[in-house]
Amino acid sequence: MNPSGLEALIEALRCLPGIGPKSAQRLAYHLMQHDRAGAARLGDAIQHALQAIRHCQRCNTFTELDICERCASPRRDPSLLCVVETPVDMNMMEQTQAYQGLYYVLMGRISPMDGIGPRDLALERLLARASDGLVREVILATNYTNEGEATAHYIMAMLKARDINVTRIARGVPVGGELEYVDAGTLAQALRERKLLGSS
Amino acid sequence: MNPSGLEALIEALRCLPGIGPKSAQRLAYHLMQHDRAGAARLGDAIQHALQAIRHCQRCNTFTELDICERCASPRRDPSLLCVVETPVDMNMMEQTQAYQGLYYVLMGRISPMDGIGPRDLALERLLARASDGLVREVILATNYTNEGEATAHYIMAMLKARDINVTRIARGVPVGGELEYVDAGTLAQALRERKLLGSS
Ligand SMILES: [Zn+2]
Ligand SMILES: [Zn+2]
Repeated sequence: MNPSGLEALIEALRCLPGIGPKSAQRLAYHLMQHDRAGAARLGDAIQHALQAIRHCQRCNTFTELDICERCASPRRDPSLLCVVETPVDMNMMEQTQAYQGLYYVLMGRISPMDGIGPRDLALERLLARASDGLVREVILATNYTNEGEATAHYIMAMLKARDINVTRIARGVPVGGELEYVDAGTLAQALRERKLLGSS
Repeated sequence: MNPSGLEALIEALRCLPGIGPKSAQRLAYHLMQHDRAGAARLGDAIQHALQAIRHCQRCNTFTELDICERCASPRRDPSLLCVVETPVDMNMMEQTQAYQGLYYVLMGRISPMDGIGPRDLALERLLARASDGLVREVILATNYTNEGEATAHYIMAMLKARDINVTRIARGVPVGGELEYVDAGTLAQALRERKLLGSS
């Protein structure tokens, strides 16, 4: 019913989460009818990003370098390693201006409901990163959701055997809340009140 | 805060209607993290569609040809021209199997609220199409929404001066309803009960 190139576009748009067949058709019509310049930019941006964007070998965030600028900076404290779920969460931590250490970005969380287990997060990379001999404290800054808590507990158990203090940012983050939606002051408070884990 | 290639992708995704900055970032992260194959297909599909998809010179629908297959078919009745708002509406009409004439697809509707006037629909192309000497009846099958009604009235006035009968599909389509969501039987009925306009 649509020409094949348009059908292919509609089908391809369905790789976007939350876009069903009707929405995909509407988006495709919109692009072809009203915003060919935008579509061209989008096509170029996708192809450039696929070529340019990779994960930092140290902190796992998105970067166009082997080692991202933050990990390469001599001004950061290499004895502190803050574990967050996403690059957005890392940016939230930075905005508190209360942290000068380094990061590890999980790029997800343990979530049995979504079929995401510890193996999917490649936590052995975090273990290796935390075992570089410089890290003295791993600060777990995963969300205070069920999944974030489960992730923190799993990582805590994994690191407990090593000579590394594992702390958790304080529950200043509202229970069930996500870092992305918390103001910087609350988050700075939570960071200050972080507590030692695994020392019972 | 994001590497530039990722920022460019986030910005480019905002050409999709209904996608704000937060959604765009989430979509970009998803593509880069979880579906690079889908992203590659999407990038290719956009670029192919931009190159391949154009508007039929006769009916204005999307096509990869100069004149679409339907317009080029010798089995369609060239004395009937059905005006619809979108390619989806044209497909709805086809599914009634009650119509053997040709189409003109407006690719929109008059909508002052959205700043879309008659000029934006390039109605002079419809006028030229309807004045080919073969068309005897123009059937207005725009939606029975306020915008669709305004569009039908405008076209009726435009065509009234010519020696062309202008009809409107019957109001079997529920008032306020859109063709896309009407069953084929109702639409076939509305087509059969179309009434002559502009003969008062
Ligand atoms: Zn890094
Ligand atoms: Zn055509």
